[in-house]
Amino acid sequence: YHILSGRKLAQSIREKANDEIQAIKLKHPNFKPTLKIIQVGARPDSSTYVRMKLKASKDSNVDCIIEKLPAEITEVELLKKISDINDDDSIHGLLIQLPLPRHLDETTITNAVDFKKDVDGFHRYNAGELAKKGGKPYFIPCTPYGCMKLLEEAHVKLDGKNAVVLGRSSIVGNPIASLLKNANATVTVCHSHTRNIAEVVSQADIVIAACGIPQYVKSDWIKEGAVVIDVGINYVPDISKKSGQKLVGDVDFDSVKEKTSYITPVPGGVGPMTVAMLVSNVLLAAKRQFVESEKLPVIKPLPLHLESPVPSDIDISRAQSPKHIKQVAEELGIHSHELELYGHYKAKISPNIFKRLESRENGKYVLVAGITPTPLGEGKSTTTMGLVQALSAHLGKPSIANVRQPSLGPTLGVKGGAAGGGYAQVIPMDEFNLHLTGDIHAISAANNLLAAAIDTRMFHEATQKNDSTFYKRLVPRKKGIRKFTPSMQRRLKRLDIEKEDPDALTPEEVKRFARLNINPDTITIRRVVDINDRMLRQITIGEAATEKGFTRTTGFDITVASELMAILALSKSLHEMKERIGRMVIGADYDNKPVTVEDIGCTGALTALLRDAIKPNLMQTLEGTPVMVHAGPFANISIGASSVIADLMALKLVGSEKNPLNDKNIHEPGYVVTEAGFDFAMGGERFFDIKCRSSGLVPDAVVLVATVRALKSHGGAPNVKPGQSLPKEYTEENIDFVAKGVSNLVKQIENIKTFGIPVVVAINRFETDSQAEIEVIKKAALNAGASHAVTSNHWMEGGKGAVELAHAVVDATKEPKNFNFLYDVNSSIEDKLTSIVQKMYGGAKIEVSPEAQKKIDTYKKQGFGNLPICIAKTQYSLSHDPSLKGVPRGFTFPIRDVRASIGAGYLYALAAEIQTIPGLSTYAGYMAVEVDDDGEIEGLF
Amino acid sequence: YHILSGRKLAQSIREKANDEIQAIKLKHPNFKPTLKIIQVGARPDSSTYVRMKLKASKDSNVDCIIEKLPAEITEVELLKKISDINDDDSIHGLLIQLPLPRHLDETTITNAVDFKKDVDGFHRYNAGELAKKGGKPYFIPCTPYGCMKLLEEAHVKLDGKNAVVLGRSSIVGNPIASLLKNANATVTVCHSHTRNIAEVVSQADIVIAACGIPQYVKSDWIKEGAVVIDVGINYVPDISKKSGQKLVGDVDFDSVKEKTSYITPVPGGVGPMTVAMLVSNVLLAAKRQFVESEKLPVIKPLPLHLESPVPSDIDISRAQSPKHIKQVAEELGIHSHELELYGHYKAKISPNIFKRLESRENGKYVLVAGITPTPLGEGKSTTTMGLVQALSAHLGKPSIANVRQPSLGPTLGVKGGAAGGGYAQVIPMDEFNLHLTGDIHAISAANNLLAAAIDTRMFHEATQKNDSTFYKRLVPRKKGIRKFTPSMQRRLKRLDIEKEDPDALTPEEVKRFARLNINPDTITIRRVVDINDRMLRQITIGEAATEKGFTRTTGFDITVASELMAILALSKSLHEMKERIGRMVIGADYDNKPVTVEDIGCTGALTALLRDAIKPNLMQTLEGTPVMVHAGPFANISIGASSVIADLMALKLVGSEKNPLNDKNIHEPGYVVTEAGFDFAMGGERFFDIKCRSSGLVPDAVVLVATVRALKSHGGAPNVKPGQSLPKEYTEENIDFVAKGVSNLVKQIENIKTFGIPVVVAINRFETDSQAEIEVIKKAALNAGASHAVTSNHWMEGGKGAVELAHAVVDATKEPKNFNFLYDVNSSIEDKLTSIVQKMYGGAKIEVSPEAQKKIDTYKKQGFGNLPICIAKTQYSLSHDPSLKGVPRGFTFPIRDVRASIGAGYLYALAAEIQTIPGLSTYAGYMAVEVDDDGEIEGLF
Repeated sequence: YHILSGRKLAQSIREKANDEIQAIKLKHPNFKPTLKIIQVGARPDSSTYVRMKLKASKDSNVDCIIEKLPAEITEVELLKKISDINDDDSIHGLLIQLPLPRHLDETTITNAVDFKKDVDGFHRYNAGELAKKGGKPYFIPCTPYGCMKLLEEAHVKLDGKNAVVLGRSSIVGNPIASLLKNANATVTVCHSHTRNIAEVVSQADIVIAACGIPQYVKSDWIKEGAVVIDVGINYVPDISKKSGQKLVGDVDFDSVKEKTSYITPVPGGVGPMTVAMLVSNVLLAAKRQFVESEKLPVIKPLPLHLESPVPSDIDISRAQSPKHIKQVAEELGIHSHELELYGHYKAKISPNIFKRLESRENGKYVLVAGITPTPLGEGKSTTTMGLVQALSAHLGKPSIANVRQPSLGPTLGVKGGAAGGGYAQVIPMDEFNLHLTGDIHAISAANNLLAAAIDTRMFHEATQKNDSTFYKRLVPRKKGIRKFTPSMQRRLKRLDIEKEDPDALTPEEVKRFARLNINPDTITIRRVVDINDRMLRQITIGEAATEKGFTRTTGFDITVASELMAILALSKSLHEMKERIGRMVIGADYDNKPVTVEDIGCTGALTALLRDAIKPNLMQTLEGTPVMVHAGPFANISIGASSVIADLMALKLVGSEKNPLNDKNIHEPGYVVTEAGFDFAMGGERFFDIKCRSSGLVPDAVVLVATVRALKSHGGAPNVKPGQSLPKEYTEENIDFVAKGVSNLVKQIENIKTFGIPVVVAINRFETDSQAEIEVIKKAALNAGASHAVTSNHWMEGGKGAVELAHAVVDATKEPKNFNFLYDVNSSIEDKLTSIVQKMYGGAKIEVSPEAQKKIDTYKKQGFGNLPICIAKTQYSLSHDPSLKGVPRGFTFPIRDVRASIGAGYLYALAAEIQTIPGLSTYAGYMAVEVDDDGEIEGLF
Repeated sequence: YHILSGRKLAQSIREKANDEIQAIKLKHPNFKPTLKIIQVGARPDSSTYVRMKLKASKDSNVDCIIEKLPAEITEVELLKKISDINDDDSIHGLLIQLPLPRHLDETTITNAVDFKKDVDGFHRYNAGELAKKGGKPYFIPCTPYGCMKLLEEAHVKLDGKNAVVLGRSSIVGNPIASLLKNANATVTVCHSHTRNIAEVVSQADIVIAACGIPQYVKSDWIKEGAVVIDVGINYVPDISKKSGQKLVGDVDFDSVKEKTSYITPVPGGVGPMTVAMLVSNVLLAAKRQFVESEKLPVIKPLPLHLESPVPSDIDISRAQSPKHIKQVAEELGIHSHELELYGHYKAKISPNIFKRLESRENGKYVLVAGITPTPLGEGKSTTTMGLVQALSAHLGKPSIANVRQPSLGPTLGVKGGAAGGGYAQVIPMDEFNLHLTGDIHAISAANNLLAAAIDTRMFHEATQKNDSTFYKRLVPRKKGIRKFTPSMQRRLKRLDIEKEDPDALTPEEVKRFARLNINPDTITIRRVVDINDRMLRQITIGEAATEKGFTRTTGFDITVASELMAILALSKSLHEMKERIGRMVIGADYDNKPVTVEDIGCTGALTALLRDAIKPNLMQTLEGTPVMVHAGPFANISIGASSVIADLMALKLVGSEKNPLNDKNIHEPGYVVTEAGFDFAMGGERFFDIKCRSSGLVPDAVVLVATVRALKSHGGAPNVKPGQSLPKEYTEENIDFVAKGVSNLVKQIENIKTFGIPVVVAINRFETDSQAEIEVIKKAALNAGASHAVTSNHWMEGGKGAVELAHAVVDATKEPKNFNFLYDVNSSIEDKLTSIVQKMYGGAKIEVSPEAQKKIDTYKKQGFGNLPICIAKTQYSLSHDPSLKGVPRGFTFPIRDVRASIGAGYLYALAAEIQTIPGLSTYAGYMAVEVDDDGEIEGLF
């Protein structure tokens, strides 16, 4: 007979595990397989097992953390602990040391462990898969796994052999029976009720003793040459031993060994193997998590049943049944605790994901811009959706579309939906277009709190002439103590008043600290509402008697025009958003010194109101591919692009890990496609000069969307008016208008070239476009330096219609790029304006009004001269004059006014008075809306 | 040998199932066990099996629906179908007919079926539990279950017997082996690799043949008297048969039968049993769902680690780790598809739940009101939380607290949190007090859309003098067609213009239809913001040049004061909310005819914006017991109570099914505890006369909250001012003030008695209260007719401190009640006002100002005289004069003005000008707020 030493085999298994870990650590230093053991209560035997497991792990360089919990812990508290560990990516294996105190239900607790971390293999997922023929359990329970390794070590051929298992526990008997059966042995399971146990065992080629009865299996039971694996761990009295007891197995070792070919000793047999297999299960879990983290997202497309003629947007949206958003997130590799669901089809993603994805390379970054549009829009959003639907639902490449949240104003006013159209949309359409997750509402609340705080502070300072009574009210005694708030302490530091105790300030210090002396005429912050309410454009406030005549003229903007929205769009983190909010200038005091949100003491409250808004929102396209919807700043007085934080997050999600040895991406990375409002000369230029300056990102390609319709209008065809039917020049072939109109396309291509980024021209095809017209556009585009010029039919065919565009984009993003900003931020405000007008718009020079010049000088004096700048003008011409189509040259660009968004970090110049809150038209979108009793919304889109 | 006929046994099993269903149907007519079978593709053999299953179900009165799906269906579409069926309560069993087309993964699909509907027993949950010793699978797979029934039928004792199973499939071999092992047989599993199969089988007392080889088991293999169960279904050629083939089992029946004691025939053996056990599994599922639906919620409490002194509210809130909201919902018996998660700790509940819970009796309905308060509040919310924490976390009785959503105004203004305090709170505190799920924001958007629509319509009618051009713009031609919107059609009907085609209206009809002629001075709708912005109390709008001088004086209210909030609080459904919105009167035209929201054409859009807001929000208390947070109408000019729909829903969730035979509740029902703002005379009276009139509900008991502090102030102690330390009279024993002050408590008890509802007085204990003072209050309360008077210490001890109160409430709700409203709605407005002033406030008579009288007469003329009415007055006295403490008598109550909320369905009279938007104090709550980089909010609460 041969002694089958578990100790030796266990040793080699642990060493092999250790070597493997060192090897991986070479390439990935932070690879650290970690096991957590929860021990509830302090049973001595459990403590010994736990210590054994701790020691074995340490030996093989596997981290092992023991969490001892009091025996009286409640089930709900223990379940909470387990769910936190399930969500902790640093823990790969979790084991609940059994048995548990009686008040805790073993099945509930063991099944609460994430079956992907269930290194004990007791979870019903793993037990169920183990029992199934061809099942795929994540882990095999340690002791049975150890037994199989021992059999393997003894080169025992199991196929066709008779195996008898004594014992049917879930920890050993049942699982080892399944393993042997799946290894094609003929297995018999004996147990306490088995009658002729000796006779049954006598036919066994392999005997597994796991019945928990000391030295139960006798030698006459054993067939000559059988293999005996003894799992028993029994303490029997032995006065010869110091401890008064010795450890024996379930087999009468001394007598049985003679008849066996192989037999495991106790101790030193299965015991050490159990612990060794635990260590290898933990390593297996860590390696799996590692491979998982390197995997590129696998997006399963939703099938699209195309109809023609193309039904209405809402009918298409309703005909599709979207994936539950959990599935969209899972496919992107987002863990459940990084996701906050908002209903079934929307969710917010937590910025903690950045820590986990830190080591990832970014994916490819694609910007979709447009030529100078007509009032009907040229389909940038549908092209963005069509492109990602093509990339992910047809070319199997992971991609995410990052778009802006639409304002309720236009949705209920004129436009209806803003989520693409036809077979290229975000769904469900109504959830996208109404409240989404409340980000715009949160900005309204934060902005209006600030406005109220400013006016009320001026009112209090005006009505409380006496400094000390005002100061007593400003820093009141509460429950007997008077204390400065943190924001007051920061203000004291700024004023170099190094005092903690409010009562210690001198009258001069009280005056300097308490009085903000805001000059009402300099206040730049206006209240906001997300509704097209023209009557609030200019109002007089404070007319009630209680306001004692302190009236003031001000007005409301549409919420998406507020500086807070721009800050939400440009901040890379919650921390940066808080800083930008604090820096917002709300006006000046009577010495013309800027007054900030921090001075008012509002930074914390505004940040608290926007705490959830900074988390990007996840939705999906019609073909089930992921979309991020975050921030929606106005396109004329602000940057008109979705958020930096969503782009940073999406680029990591579709990005690829780098192989540290050759520094090359392990996989071909995925694509993030985002948009810039209006045309490239406006939205595109700001995207580069403001958004990229803040994000540090640079697009790999620009898709320039053009339509025959817009090019004809640039070529001299009659004006296009929304709501009225198109003049016939647009619906019949007319090469001449197109040939003249392409000048605008060529100019926009040149504009993109100035930034050194490859261009793909996407002709958003309409049924009425003729092939000849398309060819003219393609030729002009390629001549002007576009890498590709393709037509795209996504409105009619979804992703299928944009496959050619997708291929073109994939190529273009491989081309080299030499990016540079249009201007140096440190040049003068006038020079910056001039370079935009000359290089982007084709104008000759700028002409600054006296009022604008005064503003420019103030900003320079206040140290805000080195900020990037955007120009608010009409989007219907490259120039400031909407009637100048095509490519106007040599015009003088008027600068009427210059305003500052210091928190958002840019100035904006106005070519003409810009409406910052639209009005409702005589017939407005809201009039057609109906809701049935199941909450289905008709008539809005 | 005996033939073990499956056909006969199957027949009896099906009949037994049929009888059982009829029996249950007697008591519960809509009990209808239903099986759904999904067949993908049309394989002939699958179709036969499906037909067999259909027939068997029909025979035993089990409904069976076959859903045939095209073979080329995609996995994602099939998974969506399965998840819809999982969510469909009318389907009890779901079965996927195997095999599936190759492109569909069998493991993924079978495991997508809800394991509680997996009547095939193939889900890994059920397979895992079956394999475990003492496991609890929801279903046993049909064929193995059939075999066990056959063995049972043959009275085969399995204990200790040798059983040999040929075959190890997941459908038969593996599960039957587990069943036999768990029945204490010694089981051997043979398979294709087994060598000496004849020898192994020869030792078997029981042979299960499931290897799929026709007539494989020979007679010489069989031990004399063995029991043979033949599972085989093989078609072998047989020219004698018309079909050219015959059905044989895996056993060579003719030879083997002689050696057996029992043997099953093929066909007619296991086959019919499989189908019979399927039917009984479906019945089992239906019975389980039925028992589940009758179960009262089982709420597992979160343990509370009390500290003293009591830490700050936010520290207590943060020290507790809340349950995930899914668990709170599950414990209430809410199904996952009836729940829309908003993050981890909030969710909305869908009103479809009403259909499922229709047959339930309501639980007990408890109102928490207060005596006339001091500015510090008397702890109604903490008492509400303490009471439900006591009921559910300490007395094991299911209970839900229904409270109002707090307005951001006070939260950021003066008050900080509004979610109870100390160890009786709603958690997480910041999610409760900031945006919650955006309901108040949705009301702001809806209200401000309406206001913009009204002003813009007046502007358009004023600036477009020519009727026909205005009409052309109002009903524009789009893509060549001109049509009326649904709301325009409804308006035409109201004007008796029976025309479909917009071009067919006569000029007179055009004028009548298009012109609303709203009189700007009569507009009652004001814009709203949820911020304490005093400067917006009275403003002049329309001052921008674009508004051509059409200015108007108006103002903003705080959002919770808007009529839409009252409508949200009073509507029983989405449908009723839509109707109430349509009925809202926004002003009058120049003929003084009321103009409604429906006339403006906004009903649909407002309803769409509030579609999610009507769904009640679910959170939890500090001890993990459920809380519903829904609607938050202002307490002075509105009803100051949470929503009707939340109360209706909560009463069903904690309600009990009725036993139709004896009409008595099966279980003792649970409790719903809700609050009325301010004191009983104000909030309580409106709760009965307005909220109960709309909900049709009547409370079973009123908890009247009193504090020694408030009673002392009614007894003449010096006034209490917020923010300043309490005068010493309040912190030292002073029986005299208490003895005098209890008059207010007695009056409020009498007020409750007038409504005929039992009263429990809850003395919200403070450390400074002396036992003697408590005794005085208790004696007075009991003398005045309170059923119980107890102290409650929930602020310090959570639920533990309110156990006595909970017992008192449980008793009180068993007492008889004879409820009546305070006044008949059809009596005159003056009489209604008089009965409130006399019976509730103790005043002598009312004195109506001329302006108020004019309003009353208009409302009477417009047919709004028969609405209930609430009085807006100070809450610091029973009278209109805040200085009159205790129980002032004989005063004349001034009615300065009367306004109407026709949509919400009540009038409100003003004793004095009421601020409908508070201001920010010199030191305001927002100033202390800070947010760290993990988003933790400090300083707000």
